[in-house]
Amino acid sequence: MLAEIITIGDEILIGQIIDTNSAWMARELNNIGIRVKQISSVSDDRQHILTSLAEAGKRADIIFITGGLGPTKDDITKKTIAEYFGVNMVENKDALNNVVNIFAKYNRPLLEVNRLQAQVPENCEVILNKNGTAPGMWFNVDGKIYISMPGVPHEMMYMMEEDVLPKLKSTLKLPFIIHKTILTVGEGESFLAERIADIEDSLPLFIKLAYLPKPGQVRLRLSGYGDDKNLISARLNEFVAKIVERVGDVVAAQEDIPIEKAILNFMAANGLTLSVAESCTGGYISHLFTQHPGSSKVFFGGAISYSYELKESILGVKGTTLLTYGAVSEETATEMAQGALLKFKSDYAIAVTGIAGPDGGTAEKPVGTVWIAVASSKELVVRKFTFGSKRQQNIERSATAALGMLNNLLREQGK
Amino acid sequence: MLAEIITIGDEILIGQIIDTNSAWMARELNNIGIRVKQISSVSDDRQHILTSLAEAGKRADIIFITGGLGPTKDDITKKTIAEYFGVNMVENKDALNNVVNIFAKYNRPLLEVNRLQAQVPENCEVILNKNGTAPGMWFNVDGKIYISMPGVPHEMMYMMEEDVLPKLKSTLKLPFIIHKTILTVGEGESFLAERIADIEDSLPLFIKLAYLPKPGQVRLRLSGYGDDKNLISARLNEFVAKIVERVGDVVAAQEDIPIEKAILNFMAANGLTLSVAESCTGGYISHLFTQHPGSSKVFFGGAISYSYELKESILGVKGTTLLTYGAVSEETATEMAQGALLKFKSDYAIAVTGIAGPDGGTAEKPVGTVWIAVASSKELVVRKFTFGSKRQQNIERSATAALGMLNNLLREQGK
Repeated sequence: MLAEIITIGDEILIGQIIDTNSAWMARELNNIGIRVKQISSVSDDRQHILTSLAEAGKRADIIFITGGLGPTKDDITKKTIAEYFGVNMVENKDALNNVVNIFAKYNRPLLEVNRLQAQVPENCEVILNKNGTAPGMWFNVDGKIYISMPGVPHEMMYMMEEDVLPKLKSTLKLPFIIHKTILTVGEGESFLAERIADIEDSLPLFIKLAYLPKPGQVRLRLSGYGDDKNLISARLNEFVAKIVERVGDVVAAQEDIPIEKAILNFMAANGLTLSVAESCTGGYISHLFTQHPGSSKVFFGGAISYSYELKESILGVKGTTLLTYGAVSEETATEMAQGALLKFKSDYAIAVTGIAGPDGGTAEKPVGTVWIAVASSKELVVRKFTFGSKRQQNIERSATAALGMLNNLLREQGK
Repeated sequence: MLAEIITIGDEILIGQIIDTNSAWMARELNNIGIRVKQISSVSDDRQHILTSLAEAGKRADIIFITGGLGPTKDDITKKTIAEYFGVNMVENKDALNNVVNIFAKYNRPLLEVNRLQAQVPENCEVILNKNGTAPGMWFNVDGKIYISMPGVPHEMMYMMEEDVLPKLKSTLKLPFIIHKTILTVGEGESFLAERIADIEDSLPLFIKLAYLPKPGQVRLRLSGYGDDKNLISARLNEFVAKIVERVGDVVAAQEDIPIEKAILNFMAANGLTLSVAESCTGGYISHLFTQHPGSSKVFFGGAISYSYELKESILGVKGTTLLTYGAVSEETATEMAQGALLKFKSDYAIAVTGIAGPDGGTAEKPVGTVWIAVASSKELVVRKFTFGSKRQQNIERSATAALGMLNNLLREQGK
């Protein structure tokens, strides 16, 4: 069963927003055995929308359309879909009630433009929007399914979870797709490939292996396709086990989770706690941890010590250290980590201090210079990194490096 | 001048990664007057890549291709492009030197698979990759330009900035596209549209208005297209001024910046400083601020007080307050904000405490309950919010709400 996703809206095409919806939808669809063949972002342009509906209709069985359902004039998805199917627009009673109720709840007057939100192509089934005024729409035409949803992420997500996915599961006979992911840290893509070349060559045709590199980490993804769930699962597990046996020294997790979640799982299982002292990463490392459910079992919190003063007052870094060696130094990173352990009373701590840029660099310490310390009461590791000139990337690479260092320290001490 | 972007790789189609490259590329291309007609994500599949190259070649003048250039077997972009153009692969000396140098620098042995990275279709001009082993490729075929780059974001970005964009600018006669964005906070999309309906109706044909809503904020984007830069610019400015005059009460910025950047700019211009006390947002608000260059002028840092203990020890929240009212309460949020002002010595502070979920909710305080306080030495505003059941969204919506509250407090006190 093949699907395509079409996102409609100029804002993606001029780069004003990033299309996070499609990735989320693709993941959910894969989970129920629907493969996404193509994701296309097209403009709020009648002819372009018509063309992409026709192209997608040729390739896929299910076509998802998001965006362009707002009440304003630039949103033309609904009437263009009606034109595509050659049908009229009608007012839908349930959709209208929904709009009326939402405006009543917030005590705002109902404008004519809002009432128009209840107009839908006459051949659709309305999917109620519990979080907004634009209704979703489900079409069955010539053996294909077309589903149109709002582009606002939480409106789309609730619709998918509560209506669309259950309905797809109950009405379609779906094949199985199983993905297994192995997260490796600290070994490059080509070296990993070399180490497991013979295993890769021996994979059966229905299992594909992909390498997904990010700075400092590579995920290995094995995907099995077919109808025999047990066979696919058994063969996948067999090959996962072979790979893990071969490159176990760099495996951080045997599931599709990011490195910080692997760390949280390991620390939770071992009853360990963590705090942070973030300077140049400015809260990003904390955010990576705290986005995960259950992180509060492990993660105490910490300090974002952007200023000299907070490095001293919250973390207890000595004024003489800052004065002698500077805020971006081995000594300051070390004292920040020790300060976090002492003040926040966690078993482990991460400290990061550096120059994210674009300003603040010197000849001796150019933009991209970052000191990272990870520590427990028993051991402290501190390292210097020299990243590039881009602020956002320096923040992300600092975080990845810090997580890699903590992961290594945990696994070594666990031995 | 129309462009299309094709991203190649199953990882986007199964939702394992979000395509951030395309948005960045689209923004850069728009800046130099190249409109992106369509963005397509296709699979690591020979026939699918060939089809999408043909489709894009029909619609656009410049075709950007990212991804699928890794050294491993699942990466087939290069040989499929060679097939598309009907040419052979050849080893490129500059690309080979680059690979050899990178491996020498990191003192790793050069594998045969790495040497293959220097093979390119014979009709391309190589774009040197200063940050990785996969070369970029530039093709001029039948009056169209095809540019293939690695999918690793920082490799692609450096290539674009250092080679591709300058070369496009110097070889093409580009028309002008100018975007002007107005950031509004606290007014819904349909109410904004109603308030400026007559202005929107009077727009000339070469100016388009789009509404870009996010929870709690709507950006209005005016886009002018054409050859007469001065005319476009003058008319755009005229309509921006009209809209700002009409809805000035909800305008937070007159440029395309997020709310936290508007706050940083306002505070920097007025010599004000900020600190935070984050519980359920877990560093996300700090990250929003600190991702922006120059944030250290305004942002001191603060505490991520995930645990009870840190709320007491760093922020000075009273134990009796936590015991009597709980961590998620008006009283705790208030003391967190006051504690941040006192301990971190900033002019303003944000405090957030809530239940992000999925665990930790009770009948009285369900998941999604969040208390937010914003304060200066003169005034404190504290509000309760009830968001939904999704952790990630609760974090984001808490942050947006907090930023909106701080923005209001700043503008009111500024009057």
